[in-house]
Amino acid sequence: MKRKNVSDAVIRRLPRYYRYLDDLHNKGVVRISSNSLGNKMGITASQIRQDLSCFGEFGQQGYGYNVDELRAEIGHILGVDNRHRLIIIGVGNLGHALMQNFRFLDSGFTLDAAFDVSPDLIGSTIAGVPVLSMDDLETYVSEHSVDVAVLTVPHSVAQSITDRLISAGVHGFWNFTNVELSGGNEDVCFEDVHFADSLLTLSYRISEQPIE
Amino acid sequence: MKRKNVSDAVIRRLPRYYRYLDDLHNKGVVRISSNSLGNKMGITASQIRQDLSCFGEFGQQGYGYNVDELRAEIGHILGVDNRHRLIIIGVGNLGHALMQNFRFLDSGFTLDAAFDVSPDLIGSTIAGVPVLSMDDLETYVSEHSVDVAVLTVPHSVAQSITDRLISAGVHGFWNFTNVELSGGNEDVCFEDVHFADSLLTLSYRISEQPIE
Repeated sequence: MKRKNVSDAVIRRLPRYYRYLDDLHNKGVVRISSNSLGNKMGITASQIRQDLSCFGEFGQQGYGYNVDELRAEIGHILGVDNRHRLIIIGVGNLGHALMQNFRFLDSGFTLDAAFDVSPDLIGSTIAGVPVLSMDDLETYVSEHSVDVAVLTVPHSVAQSITDRLISAGVHGFWNFTNVELSGGNEDVCFEDVHFADSLLTLSYRISEQPIE
Repeated sequence: MKRKNVSDAVIRRLPRYYRYLDDLHNKGVVRISSNSLGNKMGITASQIRQDLSCFGEFGQQGYGYNVDELRAEIGHILGVDNRHRLIIIGVGNLGHALMQNFRFLDSGFTLDAAFDVSPDLIGSTIAGVPVLSMDDLETYVSEHSVDVAVLTVPHSVAQSITDRLISAGVHGFWNFTNVELSGGNEDVCFEDVHFADSLLTLSYRISEQPIE
């Protein structure tokens, strides 16, 4: 079956399903009903059934879902078994934090290299990953298969670095720069992490008072 | 008017409106039509009008929106003029990154203090903000007004620290720990930043192929 026209909202819920199922799997839970899963996640059972129906038939009337199977299926849909290759551009505090703490492999990515302009960092290794010079970016990308670049660079250089990466053939960007990047063609995917959007959502919630 | 029953999807779009309007404001744009704003944001003009109608009447037929006014109104709705007070728990790489690079004030927050267990950090100052001992957490919270705690601690201690903070009276949490925290009462707000969810969304998009 084709999985065309899956809405953005459904796509955004998939990683949550995966996270909850992974948690259940780690706790040794073998099967779960859509009601119980919905209760945990704060959504309705019918929402779950509807979301999953975009991708095929899952679960069994009266039995529910086999946790391991559904986890594996959703993982497969998300591409966690594709072993995408990833590089980090910009080894400041945030770049460091991701290199040292984020489990890329759990999301199906291998972090192969990081790039920076600082002579103090170039040639060093962080969490087993080499830090290379920005001068070698194009050569590296042409010689290695790179699916995704993580952008943890200052916003002033975000677009120009993106342009270099796109020219070199990178088509996925995990963007922490708070800049709305443009890619020029529809094969390029940007996933933006906007910390401020998240904090403002919290601000709204704690400010929320009925306005009389 | 009351702003009850505003959907989660609308709330999540508000910071985006704010970000785009702020950008227009910085570029000196005085007014914008809902069509142009929609084009920029990749949503329809009618979506914008519908979203904003949850909060009152904005814009004028034939004129569009006054950028500064709408920016100020949405900022007000989001609570950016409330000057919420915020502390950071855990000064590892990510805590450092937020303290040094994130503009809390732009989102209406003042960062007053950070807390850690490391003797090397306690007593130091990072980006003008003092790092205090976790032993002094309850005393500090009882003596200062604290609206939000940013959690950048290891996941093993995330829930126990949350419990301490809730007991001390903190009711807003910006949670980077990847743990689903529970609060016990509905006055407590959690805003989770799940890096993995974001990266998995990107994985889906770059893996996306019609399944025949």
